[in-house]
Amino acid sequence: MKVRVLVSLKSGILDPQGKAVEQGLHGFDFQVDHVRIGRLIEMDLPAASAEDAKAQAQAMCDKLLVNPVMEKAVIEVLG
Amino acid sequence: MKVRVLVSLKSGILDPQGKAVEQGLHGFDFQVDHVRIGRLIEMDLPAASAEDAKAQAQAMCDKLLVNPVMEKAVIEVLG
Repeated sequence: MKVRVLVSLKSGILDPQGKAVEQGLHGFDFQVDHVRIGRLIEMDLPAASAEDAKAQAQAMCDKLLVNPVMEKAVIEVLG
Repeated sequence: MKVRVLVSLKSGILDPQGKAVEQGLHGFDFQVDHVRIGRLIEMDLPAASAEDAKAQAQAMCDKLLVNPVMEKAVIEVLG
């Protein structure tokens, strides 16, 4: 089952990479605000159901993929 | 308007970061396959409609955010 994990910095955490991209976009005259950069993790899991896949992905986030001090994760099961 | 850009490597392109994460997950006894790492870019745009927001984001991808040789982007307008 295909699962997508979107890892982003928590709202209070400074994101210099996002600021750099924002300035770059302003340099091209794009009006844009609050640019934040995170990680996109896509993977295939052997899972019987969407709930099972989500539980497995959550366990992976807790063990390895996400730093819970600074980051939050959204898990999307694509089927 | 809130827009999310998901940038990932094209399917033929080697992803050593994804391979490293995959091996790390195997080390924790997770059964997982085809792990790919990409970038998640979230931003706020001044746009009149979802179509307008998507068009602006596409222009940003073409100008700065995406390397079209190796990467592909999916734009999601969150409203």
